[in-house]
Amino acid sequence: MQAEAIFTGTELLLGQIINTNAAFLSQELAKAGISIFRQVVVGDNLERIKEAIQEAGKRADLIIVCGGLGPTEDDLTREALAGALGLPLEENPSAREHIIRFFSLRDRPMPPQNLKQALFPRGAIPLDNPLGTAPGIFLEHNGKLYACLPGPPSEFRVMLTEKLLPLLQQYSTSKEIIFSRVLKITGLGESAVEEKIQDLLKGTNPTLATLASPGEIHLRITAKAKDTEAALDLIKPLEKEIRQRLKEHIFGSDGDTLEGVVGNLLTLKGLTLAVAESCTGGLLAHRLTNIPGSSAYFHQGIVAYNNKVKLQLLGVTTEILASRGAVSEEVALAMARGVRGLAGTDIGIGITGIAGPGGGTPAKPVGLVYLAIDYQGTTQVRRELFQGLREEIKWRATQSALDMLWRLLKG
Amino acid sequence: MQAEAIFTGTELLLGQIINTNAAFLSQELAKAGISIFRQVVVGDNLERIKEAIQEAGKRADLIIVCGGLGPTEDDLTREALAGALGLPLEENPSAREHIIRFFSLRDRPMPPQNLKQALFPRGAIPLDNPLGTAPGIFLEHNGKLYACLPGPPSEFRVMLTEKLLPLLQQYSTSKEIIFSRVLKITGLGESAVEEKIQDLLKGTNPTLATLASPGEIHLRITAKAKDTEAALDLIKPLEKEIRQRLKEHIFGSDGDTLEGVVGNLLTLKGLTLAVAESCTGGLLAHRLTNIPGSSAYFHQGIVAYNNKVKLQLLGVTTEILASRGAVSEEVALAMARGVRGLAGTDIGIGITGIAGPGGGTPAKPVGLVYLAIDYQGTTQVRRELFQGLREEIKWRATQSALDMLWRLLKG
Repeated sequence: MQAEAIFTGTELLLGQIINTNAAFLSQELAKAGISIFRQVVVGDNLERIKEAIQEAGKRADLIIVCGGLGPTEDDLTREALAGALGLPLEENPSAREHIIRFFSLRDRPMPPQNLKQALFPRGAIPLDNPLGTAPGIFLEHNGKLYACLPGPPSEFRVMLTEKLLPLLQQYSTSKEIIFSRVLKITGLGESAVEEKIQDLLKGTNPTLATLASPGEIHLRITAKAKDTEAALDLIKPLEKEIRQRLKEHIFGSDGDTLEGVVGNLLTLKGLTLAVAESCTGGLLAHRLTNIPGSSAYFHQGIVAYNNKVKLQLLGVTTEILASRGAVSEEVALAMARGVRGLAGTDIGIGITGIAGPGGGTPAKPVGLVYLAIDYQGTTQVRRELFQGLREEIKWRATQSALDMLWRLLKG
Repeated sequence: MQAEAIFTGTELLLGQIINTNAAFLSQELAKAGISIFRQVVVGDNLERIKEAIQEAGKRADLIIVCGGLGPTEDDLTREALAGALGLPLEENPSAREHIIRFFSLRDRPMPPQNLKQALFPRGAIPLDNPLGTAPGIFLEHNGKLYACLPGPPSEFRVMLTEKLLPLLQQYSTSKEIIFSRVLKITGLGESAVEEKIQDLLKGTNPTLATLASPGEIHLRITAKAKDTEAALDLIKPLEKEIRQRLKEHIFGSDGDTLEGVVGNLLTLKGLTLAVAESCTGGLLAHRLTNIPGSSAYFHQGIVAYNNKVKLQLLGVTTEILASRGAVSEEVALAMARGVRGLAGTDIGIGITGIAGPGGGTPAKPVGLVYLAIDYQGTTQVRRELFQGLREEIKWRATQSALDMLWRLLKG
């Protein structure tokens, strides 16, 4: 099956948002063995959207339109699809139900124009939207498949993977799929990783590519084969080789996150955790609590932004603050011990540093961060000097803390 | 001048990289007063690139092709442009010079295939590439302008801004630029906002568009004019009208963030803040501390993920927990009071709720959140029911807390 995608939104053409849906769509279609040959971006203009749909319909078997399903004036995808195919728009009772329920559940009055979202080209099937009022549209017309999905990334992703792709299974005839396995690496830089796998980057099937993201390196192994199983057979030997070379730095694969992997290890070992953050300002607790079920092992976070907090709650002494300063190995250690004692957990983590842009000195520049872990009384501390903007330094500091914790837990 | 852009690269169609060049190109063209009506992404396939160039040539005055200028097998933009316009490829001596120099300057042997980068469609002008071996291509043909730029973002950006745009000046008939002002709204849904400004959405210069992002609505006013000053003169009356209608919901404009605006108000009033978070798990503290200088007003955060913390540190009583449950108005209020007392700040915020996916009941479903503020002893509480995934519920809850705080501070 050959697909083309149309993304609507003047904000895309003005460059005010980046089209992340395009990359996600392509990845998911590839996994499903659906080739996508063209992506088009057009503004919120009825004629241009219609024209784009008609053109795509001449070439592709599957035409996916992303965005323009909202209730507002410049949400025109419904009208454009109906117009492009010469079909009337008709109200769908169950979709109308869904919209009315959405508002009543929230004790909010429903603006009348929201009912526009219950209109569908004749013959179309509504795709329920679990996250919003805009249902998707699925339509088979003259041997072509047309699908419209809402533009907000969270809605687009869940509706693509949970509603549209399952529906497409029964239509797909593809004999070859593209499958990728991503290995995720922490605690090594991109060039250090590449040095170890240089010779493996030349392959064609599977291919190997390195992708750097802040504090992590991802290695993507991609294979073409008749099905996932066959693709995995191509991927496994290369994966095995890479795992041998980078063993102690690979924390997970594919959808894994460092906070998720750490969470699994804490659950497995029945250990509990508390954190005391200064420069990271709650980001470490936020990342840990993004994991469903984290309340089982994560008990408490203290954001000790003011030194008073370090003294009152965490047992940091005025002597240490005076002699070593708030950004020091000693304070990081005291915070780790302090929060562990306060929360009565197995593990305590302390982070103190200078996120900037202000507050740096020649001796203690912006980006200097001390991280400490107290694991049942045994402590370790790490000193880091990060580059970048405030938020990047916060992120890299939490990444380093999770890296320390991961290495500790995997033993 | 009307432009269309074509982005080549199978890695884009596979979703292996995100098309950041598209957003950058759109922004720069808008500044230069060139409207872009369509973006197309095609793979590294000669026929499809040719087809895309020919189609764009039928509609637009300026056709920009991004990518495919490298020396490798699948760099096909040169051949595609020549093929699409029926022009022969000829070697350009100065371009050949540039490539040879590039390698000799780096004492690196020149791979023979790099000389392919010296080939141009007859009549084309090379655009020097200060960062790489791939020169750009500029060609006037049958009254249309064709430009090809290399795909690597650093090369694309510098060649667009320093080579192509200056060249286009002399062709650009429109002496117009496009300028946008974004007004940011909190505490109102997209359709509720539109109800209030329905009649203003019909305008053409300036145009008005609504953009929804989680917990915020952005109104974009866009004007075409000879310069920024003239554009602002067009924007101001509409902005004034919108501000009158939505006054109490507009928290900022353009680059403003809710946490930044709240931070300015706290600084202005010399007030201090502490937060106690349960379901948001530190995200509120993280957002507040993303603002440089926030340590002046943000003193402390408590992530009370375990009920013990609510009891020990925040003075929540076992009676309330037993009678009302951890997710209740009473507990949110107790947390706000408790953290304010603990930190000795002017303001305390308490958040408790169910982020999901687990932990919901019919009486207390996933997405139920209570938020409370204690401002020097005066308290208020808010009940919310959010849709979405765990992280989205966390985000919307912090957005609601910042909205409460903002409304309190602006008085």
